[in-house]
Amino acid sequence: MGELAATRRRRADQARQVADLIRGEIVHGRFRGGRLPREAALAREFGTSRNTVRAALGLLRDEGLVERCPGVGTTIAAEKVPHGLHRLLGLAETLHEHGEVTNQVRTMTLMEPPPAVRQRLGLGPGEQVVYLERLRRLNGLPLSLDLTYLIREVGEPLFDADLVHNDIFVLLERIAGRPLGVAELTLEAVNADPHTASVLETPRGAALLMVERLTHLSDGRPVDLEFVRFRGDRLTMRGHLRRAGDPAYEHAREQARGARKEEQACL
Amino acid sequence: MGELAATRRRRADQARQVADLIRGEIVHGRFRGGRLPREAALAREFGTSRNTVRAALGLLRDEGLVERCPGVGTTIAAEKVPHGLHRLLGLAETLHEHGEVTNQVRTMTLMEPPPAVRQRLGLGPGEQVVYLERLRRLNGLPLSLDLTYLIREVGEPLFDADLVHNDIFVLLERIAGRPLGVAELTLEAVNADPHTASVLETPRGAALLMVERLTHLSDGRPVDLEFVRFRGDRLTMRGHLRRAGDPAYEHAREQARGARKEEQACL
Repeated sequence: MGELAATRRRRADQARQVADLIRGEIVHGRFRGGRLPREAALAREFGTSRNTVRAALGLLRDEGLVERCPGVGTTIAAEKVPHGLHRLLGLAETLHEHGEVTNQVRTMTLMEPPPAVRQRLGLGPGEQVVYLERLRRLNGLPLSLDLTYLIREVGEPLFDADLVHNDIFVLLERIAGRPLGVAELTLEAVNADPHTASVLETPRGAALLMVERLTHLSDGRPVDLEFVRFRGDRLTMRGHLRRAGDPAYEHAREQARGARKEEQACL
Repeated sequence: MGELAATRRRRADQARQVADLIRGEIVHGRFRGGRLPREAALAREFGTSRNTVRAALGLLRDEGLVERCPGVGTTIAAEKVPHGLHRLLGLAETLHEHGEVTNQVRTMTLMEPPPAVRQRLGLGPGEQVVYLERLRRLNGLPLSLDLTYLIREVGEPLFDADLVHNDIFVLLERIAGRPLGVAELTLEAVNADPHTASVLETPRGAALLMVERLTHLSDGRPVDLEFVRFRGDRLTMRGHLRRAGDPAYEHAREQARGARKEEQACL
């Protein structure tokens, strides 16, 4: 990054730039041993000064991603696990390679939903929902706090289910006797309020990945409205986007269109 | 939520629950006038006490989502704009209904990339990249800080382009003479370090939505590696997930398969 230095950019800008590249390497699993190279080696690798490397590692330490010990060097503080964004998956499903997900049920109750919930779940006045609040752990460490509203038909049988060891998604499909379909998803970054921080065992104000998700059965019925707070230092979301629809999808549609024409020609 | 009260849950738990529902209503645009109902009305609507409503609104104020003034009530502080997650879009493209995106170029330089960048962009030793740093504003207010590495072939012509008023994606397609293809995406929530906070004009430690995105041309060549920090209080990401692939896609494939069989029968 000799040219960068030449533009006399502020060290904070350079540190951010280096920190992003190191964060990427950590998240993509380059440092499998859990230890980062020494400052001097990183300075060479990124073509920058040791002071900039030190500032970059300081940023990652403040994020909770690495720990720095004099004499020991820089080690990865906690694995940041990837939650798949390519299809609709429960937490245990998407993290099965990363360890055991267990769920602590904090609240479970039948309730009269407020209009905001009733409307999203397509319920009439007076229809009740099951409200469920879970603290979810991966290998014993808090990962997310989930607030879930379920239509009564699929929610009530959950009172007798093993919620500690199962994703709701898997249980819902068993109860409904049909697969889930589409979920509408909204992602946000929010700061942990003091009470949420204490539940998730993370510092006050820690960045959380917040997900609102309305899940439908394959027949289109909305059944499950969720508000999930993931610890930002423990999880990433990973997926693909295409510029113009899915090319395989477009290709298949094209083929189907041609085929229909041929069908007509055959008649 | 009479049943909730009956379970004697802590007020902080109830406040979080109510705050999530109100946040959802704000994000989905229910309060178009920019003003929330009075505390008493919200308490009735959510079947909870005014103290719980007050605590819920306090949480949303701490997130920067609403403002509370004695005598005036609760108003929405800033519009939270939705970034589409259904296809690969530039910022101006996805926010065109929400106002004007302008870009301030903080740095633009040709540089020798570190191995982490070289490897992701599939470059050989000695090949240079264009490094670009932009502060992006929506209607004049800071929205994101973008760090971008571009392969030289598509990056160098950008020195002569109008970067202030154009998305990089649109310019890249014009330069490359072909559409973009797929992007690999990693989403995280991180706290703003002091320097980033001052650039984005947000409080220190504010939650940011961080996106790492590697974009390919339609021929598969990686061309653009980005690290984007969105202000968490100003933007959401919104999309759909399907449980088992895209049903329309599966359906089209099915039809195409059937069609191929018929074609054979017709021969």
